[in-house]
Amino acid sequence: MTMKAIVVREPGGVDQLSYEEVADPVPGPGEVRVQVQYAGLNRRDVYARMGQYPRVRFPAIPGSDGVGVVDAVGAGVEALTPGDPVLIYPARNWGDDERAPGRAFEILGIPTDGTYAEHVVVPAANVFPKPGYLTGPEAAALPLVGLTAYRCLFTRGALQAGEWVLIPGIGGGLATMLLLMATAAGARVAVTSSQDGKIARAREMGAEAGANYRQTDYVQDLRHAVPAGFDLVVDTLGGPGFEDVVALARPGGRVVLVGATAGPVPSLVLPRIFLKHLDLRGTSMGSPLDFARMLDFCLEHQIRPIVDRVFPLAEVSAAQEYLWDGGQFGKVVLQVSGQA
Amino acid sequence: MTMKAIVVREPGGVDQLSYEEVADPVPGPGEVRVQVQYAGLNRRDVYARMGQYPRVRFPAIPGSDGVGVVDAVGAGVEALTPGDPVLIYPARNWGDDERAPGRAFEILGIPTDGTYAEHVVVPAANVFPKPGYLTGPEAAALPLVGLTAYRCLFTRGALQAGEWVLIPGIGGGLATMLLLMATAAGARVAVTSSQDGKIARAREMGAEAGANYRQTDYVQDLRHAVPAGFDLVVDTLGGPGFEDVVALARPGGRVVLVGATAGPVPSLVLPRIFLKHLDLRGTSMGSPLDFARMLDFCLEHQIRPIVDRVFPLAEVSAAQEYLWDGGQFGKVVLQVSGQA
Repeated sequence: MTMKAIVVREPGGVDQLSYEEVADPVPGPGEVRVQVQYAGLNRRDVYARMGQYPRVRFPAIPGSDGVGVVDAVGAGVEALTPGDPVLIYPARNWGDDERAPGRAFEILGIPTDGTYAEHVVVPAANVFPKPGYLTGPEAAALPLVGLTAYRCLFTRGALQAGEWVLIPGIGGGLATMLLLMATAAGARVAVTSSQDGKIARAREMGAEAGANYRQTDYVQDLRHAVPAGFDLVVDTLGGPGFEDVVALARPGGRVVLVGATAGPVPSLVLPRIFLKHLDLRGTSMGSPLDFARMLDFCLEHQIRPIVDRVFPLAEVSAAQEYLWDGGQFGKVVLQVSGQA
Repeated sequence: MTMKAIVVREPGGVDQLSYEEVADPVPGPGEVRVQVQYAGLNRRDVYARMGQYPRVRFPAIPGSDGVGVVDAVGAGVEALTPGDPVLIYPARNWGDDERAPGRAFEILGIPTDGTYAEHVVVPAANVFPKPGYLTGPEAAALPLVGLTAYRCLFTRGALQAGEWVLIPGIGGGLATMLLLMATAAGARVAVTSSQDGKIARAREMGAEAGANYRQTDYVQDLRHAVPAGFDLVVDTLGGPGFEDVVALARPGGRVVLVGATAGPVPSLVLPRIFLKHLDLRGTSMGSPLDFARMLDFCLEHQIRPIVDRVFPLAEVSAAQEYLWDGGQFGKVVLQVSGQA
């Protein structure tokens, strides 16, 4: 049997995303095969395609996020039946320490074959029932950013109702998920962006304050809006703007570090951190326990991921370019075999 | 009445440390006057004398650390009697949030008159019974570094028995106190220094591993000694070596930031922090609650601060130069009015 899939044979540009007919994967003992209906796109897919992660291997099928139905089960798998609608935990081998993943941890989709395909094989423990209140594209938009955002805000960020959260750089899948979850938890949220339109969208979603970081006085504007400073900042950007993050956090506050799309912090003046008794807490993805708790949280609060646009699988190159341009608000999703 | 004191009239070098006869301070309501027997030196005294802190004011008497006897009490002070041997909490106005001090927080000794004097006036709540098992110089060496080290290791660092702790830059008052407290708590300690003699001294005090950071392979040596990585690093240095600190911490580990004697971190590559799920926890000094707990801990474990050398008050310039040169192992103390 064969299936349609996107195969990357060597690291490079979007022209490396080859739409092909390849052999169907077969589930081994303890594994299940999922017929993928929708696959969510992540910036990781792009970095992995460019070969910018340690331990990438090619050829490989990209894609960490997938929703679909169980299609075949391997030996010893009893709790799942073909036809079950499922969502996939987007990594494996976290290990037994909730504080950090072990050495064998890997993310689905390069090096292991991922969800840009009609079928994907994963450990049975990695599939969870698809939340019934979500559409297919919404469900495909949830796993990686839902997991990451949940761990940022709660497992690592210890967010409490009534606290002020700053989300610099609103607009992408992770940032919009942070906004949805933080407001659902009763926190008060401020956002920044280089685009006024994205700030307006965030306000419609519940953000109480926003500032355009291209304006020279945006730090003062945010200080004015939140005079006591932010209890929690979830920073996905890093770069030169990180000094503003440190300045805007309240004394004794927490800054969760979860990305560096703006590059390294060029000079970190430590007294600004230690005289304020700040916590900088690094995180990335999350454990299966985080994932289960995230699904419970989303169900309880009926969190619906924002889907910006759905592309057919065969148009994956256009989809990744659209993601990379950064104009979207919410997630970009591929339709693999589901209904349009 | 007058007293002998060291007065700094304007920021500058050690020649600004003027040994003078000045008016005796008078305790106001809720305050006590302490006859200082010994005063501990801290690097802060030097930075403050140079005017390198916000909100310094001159003229002022330096000195955060002091031990002595209650000499006079202000109105409303009932729990203390002249003659009581006491140790001084080296700051005031922490506020009501244990996570961080409030805006009114200030450290004893520039801007407020400190312990480089025969008498110092402090709030009655800031004096604690002198631990009877300590000599005068040992007791004077305890407050600021004991408070800071306790908060680093326990309040912020959450140190547990059996964990591995790295103390870069052993030798100064804070680092030696960290070593004493961490080993007393049942932790395993490694140290670094640029001087092999200091590493040898630290091993005599209980450090199980050490490496000279002037040697190019010192990070490999420490990895070899502690293959799983350090559960906790207490970094007083910052600077370019901070990347080694990040590399040596175990995944999910904690790095307490409490100094930057080597300057800013020139470039902080955030993925090295967030892919390891590290915590960077800033701290400085500590609250009165930290201080009380620190004194309990020291009493329980009979912690004796390492005193490197005692200078007479009149030789304060030589004492500060000796401190600044960094050759000491342990604390430098001034004898103010106590027995030699």
